[in-house]
Amino acid sequence: MSGTDIAAVAALDAADSLAPMRQRFVLPEGLVYLDGNSLGALPVGTAARLREVVEDQWGKSLIGGWNMHGWVAASRRVGARIAPLIGAPDDCVVVADSTSVNLYKLIVAALKAKPERRVVVSEPGNFPTDLYMAAGAAWTMSGIEVRTAPADRIVEAIEDDVALVLLTHVHYKTGRKHDMAGITRAAHDRGALVLWDLSHSAGAVAVDLEGCDADLAVGCGYKYLNGGPGAPAFLYVAQRHHASLRSPLSGWFGHAAPFAFRDDYAPSPDISRFLCGTPPILGIAALDEGVSVFADVDRDRLWDKSQALCSLFIKLMDERCAVFGFELVTARDPTARGSHVSYAHRNAHPICQALIANGVVGDFRAPDVLRLGFTPLYTRFADVWAAVETIERIMAQGEWDRPEHHVRAAVT
Amino acid sequence: MSGTDIAAVAALDAADSLAPMRQRFVLPEGLVYLDGNSLGALPVGTAARLREVVEDQWGKSLIGGWNMHGWVAASRRVGARIAPLIGAPDDCVVVADSTSVNLYKLIVAALKAKPERRVVVSEPGNFPTDLYMAAGAAWTMSGIEVRTAPADRIVEAIEDDVALVLLTHVHYKTGRKHDMAGITRAAHDRGALVLWDLSHSAGAVAVDLEGCDADLAVGCGYKYLNGGPGAPAFLYVAQRHHASLRSPLSGWFGHAAPFAFRDDYAPSPDISRFLCGTPPILGIAALDEGVSVFADVDRDRLWDKSQALCSLFIKLMDERCAVFGFELVTARDPTARGSHVSYAHRNAHPICQALIANGVVGDFRAPDVLRLGFTPLYTRFADVWAAVETIERIMAQGEWDRPEHHVRAAVT
Repeated sequence: MSGTDIAAVAALDAADSLAPMRQRFVLPEGLVYLDGNSLGALPVGTAARLREVVEDQWGKSLIGGWNMHGWVAASRRVGARIAPLIGAPDDCVVVADSTSVNLYKLIVAALKAKPERRVVVSEPGNFPTDLYMAAGAAWTMSGIEVRTAPADRIVEAIEDDVALVLLTHVHYKTGRKHDMAGITRAAHDRGALVLWDLSHSAGAVAVDLEGCDADLAVGCGYKYLNGGPGAPAFLYVAQRHHASLRSPLSGWFGHAAPFAFRDDYAPSPDISRFLCGTPPILGIAALDEGVSVFADVDRDRLWDKSQALCSLFIKLMDERCAVFGFELVTARDPTARGSHVSYAHRNAHPICQALIANGVVGDFRAPDVLRLGFTPLYTRFADVWAAVETIERIMAQGEWDRPEHHVRAAVT
Repeated sequence: MSGTDIAAVAALDAADSLAPMRQRFVLPEGLVYLDGNSLGALPVGTAARLREVVEDQWGKSLIGGWNMHGWVAASRRVGARIAPLIGAPDDCVVVADSTSVNLYKLIVAALKAKPERRVVVSEPGNFPTDLYMAAGAAWTMSGIEVRTAPADRIVEAIEDDVALVLLTHVHYKTGRKHDMAGITRAAHDRGALVLWDLSHSAGAVAVDLEGCDADLAVGCGYKYLNGGPGAPAFLYVAQRHHASLRSPLSGWFGHAAPFAFRDDYAPSPDISRFLCGTPPILGIAALDEGVSVFADVDRDRLWDKSQALCSLFIKLMDERCAVFGFELVTARDPTARGSHVSYAHRNAHPICQALIANGVVGDFRAPDVLRLGFTPLYTRFADVWAAVETIERIMAQGEWDRPEHHVRAAVT
């Protein structure tokens, strides 16, 4: 077949109104980085921003920085900047802790709000920390069951004993996207709350928490939000739950009057009640820099470009790599997937290593998945072309099978 | 009376073998910074260290940084550097999360390990987040009582129903230091565990966790460890408890095989089981830089100097400020206090503000405490002299009573 040619791909980049955004990131020359869904690229402004916070704020103002430079409100301020990316009101999102810790806060909060219901429903193969934190919450509280049901059986699993449905919006491995509106509605019909993990959505995929009547959400700061390795995470609680839901991690920054130094805990009346310890100012500043890039983009175009990148990748793989035994795990329907595409292949690990050795960075997810992420802020259509060319070459020439590509590192 | 003169104070600085350490910190010219117990000063090396992590590591290695730059092991590596400052073996300390979150992990871990005991003993007026996190753990688990007893009645309060004694080693407000060895022994005699909060100890006060047979400890990274605003915290678990205690915050970084992506949680066999989410690499790097300063100091001299600074301050206050109504809250006995000195005064708030306006930075703690911290790494004896001179002047001249000094900021 004739297939897509490089000129057609170049035309896509030429017509891309988001193409200039790539200049806002530091990306090593010649690297095809398709792992922004695991660790987002470094924004150009981050180094200077950290220098400012460290040298000008901490170094010069010392303790005075908490008032002078607005550190006290940083969790709320950066939360409000994330809010429009996930369809949330500004005052319903905070930056705090890690995704794992935020999961725990909201899982326990939901279980405590529905004491007559003792079940959390999730799916097998959900991102491990989601299942682990649910297990941790169940262990702490006692008498709680974590029930798993396959993605297409979730709604049936929401019986009368279910307090909370815990799902990752876009699956970390398969790239499959849940129907947020439909599942939320079904859960509400059965009297349950829903907690959405947006780690693989926020910043690359359209999310409309308010439009879906969502209750709770958490998400990661170091993937599409480009906050740096181990960046602080965020959480969302719908306005209607602010007064009734409480965090088990009732630290002093969630207190109604943190600096009154009272012995008794009284939660803040607003979203701040889901804060816990002293906010990590350096990490929040770096995340703020990552999030600030989005202020200048047309979000609808961003979501469209994400789908277009993934669709092009699948099309080129169909055209050029069909003979090599890759099995598409991700949905072909753009509305049913996120911003990464996964293929199962029995040699996925050495193939992934060979790609990295050839300057195409994706990742491997056990046991057999090759995962490539497309970040609409900085991935070019030409990167997609280059990735498929490289896959074709290492497969056709058998380069994937070199001994060094079979070595496993600590993080794979 | 004749009293101490400036020449005697200058001689103390001249004879101080730690005096050169001050050069390792950025301290604004002319500022007398006596609040390192609230936010430690900026180490000279931190800005360059963060530039390296951001530009050279994250920017160039991207996802590869987790293996290439040892990010995966950062929590353990920096924990091991903190260990000698608190008398702990290297493999019993990790850097993770905030002090508040770490308190929760260990409070629940202790309660779960002693299910037949339902009480946590602490003291009224403990640092708020300690009491709040105990309340949060009790609320999550149900059936748990947080019992408070005054500092001098703690041992009597440890009855047969007590699972855990939760105390701050050096009290944040009064500066009073608990007898770690004695209370730990008494608690063990009664079958209880003890969790020590070292936030106001680590890095300024001698701590011997292993020598005291301590069970558990947490502490702050942004006070005497100079990790920056909201730095990650640390936690300690004695080796003998590694196999039996479990964290309720069972996130993926605490898993025995985090990158196997299994559905079921299996805790790491070692101290790593108390990790939770993805480690905050920028924050840990800054903390590492703060902690690395200690590698070059004689620790015994550090603890001695802390006591000498506090003793000089009390002596000068006795000599020069006795008429102004300050009431010493902190113990006169150097072995019974930490590295800060507090005075109660009915006008403590405006006095503190007037001091700040005159370049002497301490802090106010409600309702009536003026607190001054002495960081043996960078506080000079001459700073102590200057502080007392300034206190004497603003009191004698009534400057403390200017209207602007009565204004309260968000963080006081």
